[in-house]
Amino acid sequence: MSEIDIRTMALAARAAGRALALAPATTRDAALFEIAARLAAVGPELWAANREDVAYALEAGMAPSLVDRSTLNAKRLQSMAQGCRDIAALPDPLGEVFDGRTLPNGMVLAKKRVPLGVLGVIFESRPNVTIDIGTLALKSGNAVIMRGGKESLQTNTVLADIVHGALSQVGLPVDAVQLITSSDRALVSQLLEMDDLIDLVIPRGGPGLQGLVKKLAKMPVAYGGIGVCHLFVDESADLPRSIPLINNAKTQAPSVCNALDTVLVHRAVVDRLLPDMVANLNASSVKVYLDARALAALGGAAAASELVAPATDEHFGYEFLSLQMSVKVVDSLDEAIAHIQQHSTGHSDGILTDSVASSERFLNEVDSAANYVNCSTRFTDGGQFGLGAEVAISTQRTHARGPMGLRELTTYKWIARGDYHLRP
Amino acid sequence: MSEIDIRTMALAARAAGRALALAPATTRDAALFEIAARLAAVGPELWAANREDVAYALEAGMAPSLVDRSTLNAKRLQSMAQGCRDIAALPDPLGEVFDGRTLPNGMVLAKKRVPLGVLGVIFESRPNVTIDIGTLALKSGNAVIMRGGKESLQTNTVLADIVHGALSQVGLPVDAVQLITSSDRALVSQLLEMDDLIDLVIPRGGPGLQGLVKKLAKMPVAYGGIGVCHLFVDESADLPRSIPLINNAKTQAPSVCNALDTVLVHRAVVDRLLPDMVANLNASSVKVYLDARALAALGGAAAASELVAPATDEHFGYEFLSLQMSVKVVDSLDEAIAHIQQHSTGHSDGILTDSVASSERFLNEVDSAANYVNCSTRFTDGGQFGLGAEVAISTQRTHARGPMGLRELTTYKWIARGDYHLRP
Repeated sequence: MSEIDIRTMALAARAAGRALALAPATTRDAALFEIAARLAAVGPELWAANREDVAYALEAGMAPSLVDRSTLNAKRLQSMAQGCRDIAALPDPLGEVFDGRTLPNGMVLAKKRVPLGVLGVIFESRPNVTIDIGTLALKSGNAVIMRGGKESLQTNTVLADIVHGALSQVGLPVDAVQLITSSDRALVSQLLEMDDLIDLVIPRGGPGLQGLVKKLAKMPVAYGGIGVCHLFVDESADLPRSIPLINNAKTQAPSVCNALDTVLVHRAVVDRLLPDMVANLNASSVKVYLDARALAALGGAAAASELVAPATDEHFGYEFLSLQMSVKVVDSLDEAIAHIQQHSTGHSDGILTDSVASSERFLNEVDSAANYVNCSTRFTDGGQFGLGAEVAISTQRTHARGPMGLRELTTYKWIARGDYHLRP
Repeated sequence: MSEIDIRTMALAARAAGRALALAPATTRDAALFEIAARLAAVGPELWAANREDVAYALEAGMAPSLVDRSTLNAKRLQSMAQGCRDIAALPDPLGEVFDGRTLPNGMVLAKKRVPLGVLGVIFESRPNVTIDIGTLALKSGNAVIMRGGKESLQTNTVLADIVHGALSQVGLPVDAVQLITSSDRALVSQLLEMDDLIDLVIPRGGPGLQGLVKKLAKMPVAYGGIGVCHLFVDESADLPRSIPLINNAKTQAPSVCNALDTVLVHRAVVDRLLPDMVANLNASSVKVYLDARALAALGGAAAASELVAPATDEHFGYEFLSLQMSVKVVDSLDEAIAHIQQHSTGHSDGILTDSVASSERFLNEVDSAANYVNCSTRFTDGGQFGLGAEVAISTQRTHARGPMGLRELTTYKWIARGDYHLRP
């Protein structure tokens, strides 16, 4: 039995969120600068806590990459502090009045941009997320209840204390940013039941976490971050320029959601493209799974490489998250679009083409969160899109699609001013 | 065991939705005009089906008001046909390109407005909803799977046939509008599982239906239509003009979600307001539940009326949906705001005041979907707000708040055009 009463936490978050929503932007920004200052001047308790977490992670036999992500150092701390200042420097997402109109009866009606209310964020590993999410929530006027990974619990607790100190310092309620300091799984289930107090849940993690949230959450959820991403090389593509682009989309950050998973190649260019493309990818240590026609286009010597293998059905519609990808030859743009419609997770898909007609058809008929002509899929990112920091990349169709920045953490309310108007 | 394969239906809806999203506005509008023409020329099979439904409803002992809502007549049919023409006349919600920008690297990025995809709509009674929802979905480029009430099944089946005939006539896929022609409840559960094929579920019904959907739905849901609505009479309100406004908010359509439920009265005006307000409401057959201080302000004779009774806690935060309401005296604007924050369902709440300071504080601190100064709560309606017809009134904070019209049935996709751009 946990001693944490999650409902009491959420009620306090609701009250804190109301105060935060009314706080001027200068106060919210002051909190962010104060967090940055406190991170820059952090004492030994953070390092001790992080050492404890890392020791736990090693003892638990966690993968080295996860242990590395959980390890703080001076550079990472500096980057977290700079992140706070960067978010503070973004425009205030609140207060915009828009879609205003005067009704025929004289009532004046408009929408006003307001915070969503209380966010629930469940994430795995990486203590910097505690600061990222906390500052994005504060800047957008939302209270937040966070639950991080067990392997970062001590570090996250110290980071939450830092946020609380900053909130107190500027006169904002400390309950605006709360951390669940227990790894009791029942608390997550309870959180996901409270649709009266949590306005949006953001699960930042893999399919396991998302499946749990799908099963239990009664409130709106921003699902995302799972990207089976495609590039289609059209018959009119500039092949020499396509090869480095494909390499960039695969290798620039292979373990993230907007990394390329499948290249579809028009049969008219397969013989010219494939040998150079595969050689280029292999030179970057990318293992390529090719369908029969692509393999045939490769020729014997290249096909014998350890980094080349025949593709099976499992290699399509699959998110590799590593230096692996699949290649399929298609007969037409139609076949490419149909393949993407069937196998994409609706995250990021693109066409490489010099044909206006093909690019327009692709942009009309492929309906992912981000749809590209002659760009790397790696651009799907709040920072790259000019939205500032992002809290998630949504693959849902409601509320927000693609990178969710500050504005996507807001909603609107209708405001109407009348002169004792009656409805006829 | 039902013979209906709901997954096959949804797959067909997905394909039809893709075709519909690409159909020009003129074709979608032509379908709506064709539905109107077919409704105007409807044959005896509709009347026979409706008689069958009404007989079933009477036999099942349904409330007379529900039987009435299920009964079609020439006037209602004419109104349904006119509704189709009205929706066709609205601007096309699709295709808008907005939030466009050129990134520092030269990539051109914008959002494009597109349909949500496939809607699942579950509703109770009223066969006109079949046509309303079908036409709103078609106009907004969405496919829809509908499940109506058992007591309208025969009528809805004929109406769906009419829609299918119209779709065929204009060359759109008939699977764009599908009706579940079975009252097997397991089909609803199956529908709510298919988050890969249904993009938004809209439950149009009471708390029972909404609770079921909360429990089972894995996809986004537009909850709404439950309104505990408040008006606060501030000390500076124009009392003679407040009384007809309160009457309008309560009686203009007492059984709907934006009807008034609770009046909060500033103690400074309670003695002057209460006797006339209650007499006015009683004259419209409204039963008024008053807290102790309001009862005291009424005086003996009025308080003895059958239409006056003491309020208990249950009368606050309660949606009456009938000619009943509750009244509470508050000491201040603060207390009124706190009461609304605690008891409102976030649908429609208002203040009656001549004070700019009070009205601004109310609009800032009350955060319902619709927030009013000196207006009847009855205005929360897609038609009244100038949005055209509405598919629901959302009380959620994500995606859309308040009346959901055509635009609220859309989303956006990001479109990026580059010149073989790599992410650095």
